[in-house]
Amino acid sequence: MSELVRFGVSISSELLARFDKLIESKGYSNRSEAIRDLIREHLVDQEWEEDTETIGAITIVYDHHIRELSETLISLQHRYHHSIISSMHVHIDEHNCLEVAVVRDKGSVVKDIADKIISTKGVKHGKLTMSTTGINL
Amino acid sequence: MSELVRFGVSISSELLARFDKLIESKGYSNRSEAIRDLIREHLVDQEWEEDTETIGAITIVYDHHIRELSETLISLQHRYHHSIISSMHVHIDEHNCLEVAVVRDKGSVVKDIADKIISTKGVKHGKLTMSTTGINL
Amino acid sequence: MSELVRFGVSISSELLARFDKLIESKGYSNRSEAIRDLIREHLVDQEWEEDTETIGAITIVYDHHIRELSETLISLQHRYHHSIISSMHVHIDEHNCLEVAVVRDKGSVVKDIADKIISTKGVKHGKLTMSTTGINL
Amino acid sequence: MSELVRFGVSISSELLARFDKLIESKGYSNRSEAIRDLIREHLVDQEWEEDTETIGAITIVYDHHIRELSETLISLQHRYHHSIISSMHVHIDEHNCLEVAVVRDKGSVVKDIADKIISTKGVKHGKLTMSTTGINL
Repeated sequence: MSELVRFGVSISSELLARFDKLIESKGYSNRSEAIRDLIREHLVDQEWEEDTETIGAITIVYDHHIRELSETLISLQHRYHHSIISSMHVHIDEHNCLEVAVVRDKGSVVKDIADKIISTKGVKHGKLTMSTTGINL
Repeated sequence: MSELVRFGVSISSELLARFDKLIESKGYSNRSEAIRDLIREHLVDQEWEEDTETIGAITIVYDHHIRELSETLISLQHRYHHSIISSMHVHIDEHNCLEVAVVRDKGSVVKDIADKIISTKGVKHGKLTMSTTGINL
Repeated sequence: MSELVRFGVSISSELLARFDKLIESKGYSNRSEAIRDLIREHLVDQEWEEDTETIGAITIVYDHHIRELSETLISLQHRYHHSIISSMHVHIDEHNCLEVAVVRDKGSVVKDIADKIISTKGVKHGKLTMSTTGINL
Repeated sequence: MSELVRFGVSISSELLARFDKLIESKGYSNRSEAIRDLIREHLVDQEWEEDTETIGAITIVYDHHIRELSETLISLQHRYHHSIISSMHVHIDEHNCLEVAVVRDKGSVVKDIADKIISTKGVKHGKLTMSTTGINL
């Protein structure tokens, strides 16, 4: 991990007061942490634009009673086993379950895998969360 | 306008180097301006969550040859003339035109007007841009 | 304009009932129009991914009292006059004004122009709305 | 599960051709499934607007070497154990790990828990994915 440095930000007192109020309501204990979070969020967006190695979480909700759906989803995940690190399964009720698959690859590959999984017949809802490996952040 | 103050942010030198590179590529001339923009973006998101007075821009694309569409859109805009400040019309080609209406009201009212305009038959594409009055920012 | 065709969608009656309720609240007069809007929205997202010719609206809020800001913004817009079709200026109060510039070019160029305008010192808030030329939609 | 019904959508042949091409590239095997997905996505957005019971996935990336961070995160999750169903931990490298927590509650509560977790000092990146219980979808 690299050394800590410090830089100054000039800002109107009124704007700073509003920012302090907002971050307090979100639970931040100090301003530097909130600013670093804004900076890192911005950098992660950029990582996905530049198509470098990154991590995405694919969240799907489906009815496990649908014939062959679980098998299809499992075999899909196996086809991409080089990229899919891990997945978690949550039972919502008798019918519905939620699954999160964590995928590590270039952004475009992660998007492609997400498309394939989300478009599977029987998957009711799916979303790709664009996260990060956290390296150099 | 309130007085300018200055606060310090502690950050790893590596993260700061990446941030500097990113904001340079976006055209920022200095770090304070980039940080203030991140802060203000955050505050504007909050204004829309809290449903205070704000400004939205409704952008629509439509085919002006569709019978009665222009009339419908104009009368819709007149019905909300207390909220719609101004609008601009751009001719894209023989068929298509783009219109931007700037609306000032509580966030929920702006969303409602946007829904009504965007759902009008013949409007091909519509989006609400959540902007701000800029007051206290 | 191409001929109208018709296709059928099979769906659970419950899901359809919820959809009908939602689109009625948004102001849609019929289901086909709502479905076409969902389809077109999806296609416009794709246009921006594929970096084809498109139209974006750049919405900024700024304090026109800031020295040289208006001049900077105007000269920026002139530098890109081949892409910027038109712009509209709205007075919000004594200090603040909102400007919308409509830009037609490849998606990546529109994003680049938006970055340059939004990062200008004194611009309080800026957003790029990804719209479309409407051609073939 | 309710009975299947069928409804017709009228659309220009050109627009339909573009839609068919797009959904094929995303991996859909038929048009009805793609339309149902668009409809369900729209309904899930609405669920979050209306603050009904729903499910969110909170994805965070952090450095587990940071003193007391893991303890803080675990105790936070325990404080909300009535809402947090399950969580998964993935080791990215020596320093970084990614955690996904699945939270079931009213939308506003899920957002609040997400704020608290994401703002914790040492969490590098965090996002809330707005999913659904899938009930009635």
